[in-house]
Amino acid sequence: MKKVSENKCFGGVQGVYTHASDACSCDMTFGLFLPEEAEDGPVPVLWYLSGLTCTHENAMVKAGAQEWAAEYGIALVFPDTSPRGEGVADDEAYDLGQGAGFYVNATQEPWSPHFQMWDYVAEELPKIVTANFAVDEARQSIMGHSMGGHGALTMAMQLQGRFRSVSAFAPIANPTRSDWGRKQLSAYLGEDEMAWAGHDASLLMRAEGFDGPILIDQGSEDQFIDLLKPEVLAEAMVARRQNGRLRMQPGYDHSYFFVASFMADHVAFHAETLHRR
Amino acid sequence: MKKVSENKCFGGVQGVYTHASDACSCDMTFGLFLPEEAEDGPVPVLWYLSGLTCTHENAMVKAGAQEWAAEYGIALVFPDTSPRGEGVADDEAYDLGQGAGFYVNATQEPWSPHFQMWDYVAEELPKIVTANFAVDEARQSIMGHSMGGHGALTMAMQLQGRFRSVSAFAPIANPTRSDWGRKQLSAYLGEDEMAWAGHDASLLMRAEGFDGPILIDQGSEDQFIDLLKPEVLAEAMVARRQNGRLRMQPGYDHSYFFVASFMADHVAFHAETLHRR
Repeated sequence: MKKVSENKCFGGVQGVYTHASDACSCDMTFGLFLPEEAEDGPVPVLWYLSGLTCTHENAMVKAGAQEWAAEYGIALVFPDTSPRGEGVADDEAYDLGQGAGFYVNATQEPWSPHFQMWDYVAEELPKIVTANFAVDEARQSIMGHSMGGHGALTMAMQLQGRFRSVSAFAPIANPTRSDWGRKQLSAYLGEDEMAWAGHDASLLMRAEGFDGPILIDQGSEDQFIDLLKPEVLAEAMVARRQNGRLRMQPGYDHSYFFVASFMADHVAFHAETLHRR
Repeated sequence: MKKVSENKCFGGVQGVYTHASDACSCDMTFGLFLPEEAEDGPVPVLWYLSGLTCTHENAMVKAGAQEWAAEYGIALVFPDTSPRGEGVADDEAYDLGQGAGFYVNATQEPWSPHFQMWDYVAEELPKIVTANFAVDEARQSIMGHSMGGHGALTMAMQLQGRFRSVSAFAPIANPTRSDWGRKQLSAYLGEDEMAWAGHDASLLMRAEGFDGPILIDQGSEDQFIDLLKPEVLAEAMVARRQNGRLRMQPGYDHSYFFVASFMADHVAFHAETLHRR
């Protein structure tokens, strides 16, 4: 693991690190915020998964999460959204290939050699983070935006017991029924839709739900809302009696201005479960 | 109008009053809380509609709303849930007749002579309250529990512009598709289901929504949740991009212990719109 940069930030440190990834067979970069409390011992950790076109950097510089993570003494991890570099497959479209890993393990060519983002985020990166930084793997939560909201929700439901709480800003909520999803799941996982079900938050909610609280924020003026399908997840959550909150925020769009506006609520929401002993 | 009782309460006055009702053709009783601020001039007013079997009294003594209404300087009105008394039709079932007016104007015998609860709550009682107490009719909001949540949501959507915000605890959300609804709408309004549509919050949400914010709380262990159908309203709200929040509260049931637990949030929610000039 190699340090790219470290900056003091709200009393703690915002770092960027690279490492050779076994899962993705390329170098990967991630951001990590450690609050001041990490100097005295392991702190809880909150994962932030980003959306289409993002790298590790977007949320790190635009979401305003560090202020609140510092207030609650929580670490933040900002993984990248795909493998990158020469020799890594890509597509001309912004929503496939590099910057658009969709948090799945690709089984199809040309993606399968590098696009193993599920294993990277769920298995490899946690080991690296806990081995190198003062974070407490018994206290983890996860959140994300758009494609990252999809990743956060599907990981939370598939890895029951790992995350104490999950939240999402404008998540891709029903990708198996959306052009943000069918194209990518088909490219990465093949045409057999049975293989897609584990990567659709609404289907997972119908099937089993999440053993902890969920918070979803969605902007009413989100330019991509018809692709996100929040109403399908809403129905599934309430039909399951899922511990959760859904908020339609009037006037907000899909941008990081929206994410930043409600970040304080999301970190506070996670802090409540993360600081429960 | 006749005073039944007045008690000092959180610095203000909790009163109970009776009056001859033109709408219901019988005497009606209501509770009214006035905060201390009403001594200096008109205050905003928050309506609380109660559920099946309730009188004006249940919420007044069990919901814990006065503490928060006093904090925000807001009046509370607690109407009864039906006409009552000798000569007023009734049924042996707890969910039809006295205590179960469903906030509609009955068109069918034997209910139509007295069961005009829509007109009573939407027209007659507001006139009486504004004529006799220091409340500001330009600043009104409404909430309710169960059948009263149904009443609050349907009135808010049918009387656009009247209420600045609406909230509900465990509302009957889709009565045209529930045994809490079909029986009563059929008895009061007749078999023509076209006449029911204006009294179904989910149908009204699909058709037009509400021009203001909505807050819904629902307990996950609510013993009546299958009759309430919150998932239908959830889907309709999010599909409409309705300014609103839905919260599934884990472990809570249908009782006033649930209502009281989240009353502070509801009054604060309404206070935000009621104190906007």
